Amino acid sequence: MKTLNLIFVSFLIMAVSSYAQKVDIEGDRAALSNADEEWSKVAAAKDVEGFTAAVTETGSILPPNTPILTGKEAIRQWASNLTANPGFALSWRPTTVDVANSGDLGYTVGTYELKIHDAAGNPVTDRGKYVTVWRKQSGGNWKVVFDIFNSDLPLPTMSPSQQ
Amino acid sequence: MKTLNLIFVSFLIMAVSSYAQKVDIEGDRAALSNADEEWSKVAAAKDVEGFTAAVTETGSILPPNTPILTGKEAIRQWASNLTANPGFALSWRPTTVDVANSGDLGYTVGTYELKIHDAAGNPVTDRGKYVTVWRKQSGGNWKVVFDIFNSDLPLPTMSPSQQ
Repeated sequence: MKTLNLIFVSFLIMAVSSYAQKVDIEGDRAALSNADEEWSKVAAAKDVEGFTAAVTETGSILPPNTPILTGKEAIRQWASNLTANPGFALSWRPTTVDVANSGDLGYTVGTYELKIHDAAGNPVTDRGKYVTVWRKQSGGNWKVVFDIFNSDLPLPTMSPSQQ
Repeated sequence: MKTLNLIFVSFLIMAVSSYAQKVDIEGDRAALSNADEEWSKVAAAKDVEGFTAAVTETGSILPPNTPILTGKEAIRQWASNLTANPGFALSWRPTTVDVANSGDLGYTVGTYELKIHDAAGNPVTDRGKYVTVWRKQSGGNWKVVFDIFNSDLPLPTMSPSQQ
């Protein structure tokens, strides 16, 4: 009987663990959505260090019309150039957020609006879309491993790399 | 002693399961890399139906300079237009492939080369990068949920939506 009880308790623990994992996935989605929105606020505030800190040490940003940027220094330099534009205003919001069942990998997809001044000093507005891949860190927070975006507007148009 | 044996056996099963899961992740990475390469071959062969079949029913492709394309019909139409270009030649290869610990979600990142004829009939070559998010289906195969790409070349340049 002791053995049967132990088996029963084992199954009970497995069932509860399985349920708890599903609850965590919903929590992970909410946390990841929040991380994406917080990243947008940091970018809007021209906080270059905060923007860079959201990316992992080996993470990459893939802007249009320029090669892939990998690592903190390349990303910091790019963000610094972009936010220094006198007309800079950037915002985005996720429309799709999902995570793996294991809660270690997730992605956000959404739309952005970027306002900058072109080379002639004229204000231009770009609108587009993005996909960001995130990894949950050992501390439980989410960080960017790959971020890519492009414009919805027809060519020729403004893109974040054209300043 | 029986109880202790059962506990020992339980831990042994957990340890073996944990190891087996890690082995599966390597297998998943290989399968996902292969799925991405196969998708490139299908695109190169101008196989519009095969290209569309690689995407889930609600999956999206996010090309530059056009709004997001969601669902089979929109993707089929876009792929049909692109492959009909007389100069069409497309290839890509993944440089980074990773999956979640649970093996249900993964992504590929890589580089592409697209050759088409512009509106004047002149051959142009675009080179760029992409991020594709994949979901493992119930049958074990991987399908695309989001695919986004953009050019490495400075503006103004050719992009897949400019024909």
